[in-house]
Amino acid sequence: MELLVVGSVALDTVETACAQRTEVLGGSASFISTAARRFAPVRLVAVVGDDFPPAHRELLAAQGIDISGLQVVPGRTFRWSGRYHQNMNCRDTLSTELGVFESFRPELDAAARQSEVLFLGNIHPALQLQVLAEAQGVRFAGLDTMNYWIEGTPELLAQVLARVDVALVNEEEARSLAGVCPLAEAAAKIRQLGPRYLVIKRGEYGALLFWEEGVLAVPALLLPDVQDPTGAGDSFAGGFMGYLAREGDFSPASLRRAMIHGTVLASCAVEDFSLGGLLRPTAAQLEQREQQLLAMLQV
Amino acid sequence: MELLVVGSVALDTVETACAQRTEVLGGSASFISTAARRFAPVRLVAVVGDDFPPAHRELLAAQGIDISGLQVVPGRTFRWSGRYHQNMNCRDTLSTELGVFESFRPELDAAARQSEVLFLGNIHPALQLQVLAEAQGVRFAGLDTMNYWIEGTPELLAQVLARVDVALVNEEEARSLAGVCPLAEAAAKIRQLGPRYLVIKRGEYGALLFWEEGVLAVPALLLPDVQDPTGAGDSFAGGFMGYLAREGDFSPASLRRAMIHGTVLASCAVEDFSLGGLLRPTAAQLEQREQQLLAMLQV
Repeated sequence: MELLVVGSVALDTVETACAQRTEVLGGSASFISTAARRFAPVRLVAVVGDDFPPAHRELLAAQGIDISGLQVVPGRTFRWSGRYHQNMNCRDTLSTELGVFESFRPELDAAARQSEVLFLGNIHPALQLQVLAEAQGVRFAGLDTMNYWIEGTPELLAQVLARVDVALVNEEEARSLAGVCPLAEAAAKIRQLGPRYLVIKRGEYGALLFWEEGVLAVPALLLPDVQDPTGAGDSFAGGFMGYLAREGDFSPASLRRAMIHGTVLASCAVEDFSLGGLLRPTAAQLEQREQQLLAMLQV
Repeated sequence: MELLVVGSVALDTVETACAQRTEVLGGSASFISTAARRFAPVRLVAVVGDDFPPAHRELLAAQGIDISGLQVVPGRTFRWSGRYHQNMNCRDTLSTELGVFESFRPELDAAARQSEVLFLGNIHPALQLQVLAEAQGVRFAGLDTMNYWIEGTPELLAQVLARVDVALVNEEEARSLAGVCPLAEAAAKIRQLGPRYLVIKRGEYGALLFWEEGVLAVPALLLPDVQDPTGAGDSFAGGFMGYLAREGDFSPASLRRAMIHGTVLASCAVEDFSLGGLLRPTAAQLEQREQQLLAMLQV
């Protein structure tokens, strides 16, 4: 099945304790699409300005991502800049310049409306709702969100949650969304809002999948060298949704396997800046990480 | 096999956002012994002052813990006082009064020297060394330590590490002990110092077991209500070592199972103050938690 990804394409300026990169390709849709493309056909819907470097556009297209839905409009591309602390778990956002992303209105052509699997990156819930209404072919939909929308537009977000099959949030977002602290209780409350499945991402500690009958805890791989955590959560989402699109199976058993692939792709993403870590590994190297991760779960 | 536990017995004053308890039974040896007693015979070696309440002594004895090695000497019992922050992950130590624990010198009688399994709670490495020298019957030994000894007496600690089979430390201690940040690298360095096995405890995120051929990641159970995290790490150690003593099997397969039991006992400990959470569950309730935890690992 084809995965339709709606989100941001951005130019990221990232500073870590060891290195810095200026205006490299970033944005949720870039990471999600690149990770998902390892598994299934991907169609990207996003917006960039007329300053968007042709090389970045070519990099996405060269992977076989369908970028016919990447709108180019007059103005500046979304730019984000952040600095990571020594331990990589904390970061400060130095600047956010929305540019053309501020007036982004996703446009789905006839082909996009036929996509069977949909992932809504972290955009305004009103836009997420619009895409859900237009994407008539969708059999399974997922979303990401953030505290800005959880606090700012809770009613709209509730409408989106009522219409998706899986939500991917981090621990803080889960607690904020549910209004309770214990994670199992928060997960139950969020699932009552609509999504059959919930993924709670815990960074270097891995991720949890909640569904009607249980919980799966997948640890993160233990990496020798983390270069840049930017895009880890989106890469997780890409591996997770890409695997589901490839399988066309949305059962709990399939989602448990998807957790493994999400974790593997996230582990690749953080080993380099921008999309470098997602593009480099061979299929055999991904398979090796998958086996390494499964071994960590063998009691 | 019998587990010999050497550590502290203390009177804890604990404050959380919701409640407070004054001079309740605590100390590493109390938690370790009580958790381990669910699995195997336990012999406790520790010291208290002549102010130690008889009821606490009886509570330990009533579980069938052999407390003939619990020295009572003139002076005050070790007292610790701490306050937990709202989220229970951070705590401030308000006061530490070592009392008679300051001049503790473990005494092993003939029976104690025959114990086959030994756990050295967090005490001065010189005392840990002395116990290791005297406990001639030991076939498998574990230790806990803390940054105070890692930074203060590294040479002595290295001597202890060279003589134990398993070390249990938290993430910060592992990084400090190894002098490197990535956990897999830190684990490899610590294992080179001696212990065949290493457990890295990660609080609410679970624990990692490292051995020659691999890594196991066990998540913590997701609890509806954490009352007091004091003693969670010691209860983990107790469940872990108690299981190993019961099985008398120190293979990687056995240590992987021990991780499950350590996690289950730690989950019980935090649901009440002092030893309450360890004492309450029935065998069936422990078994139920074990199944719940194993299900969290089923991909």
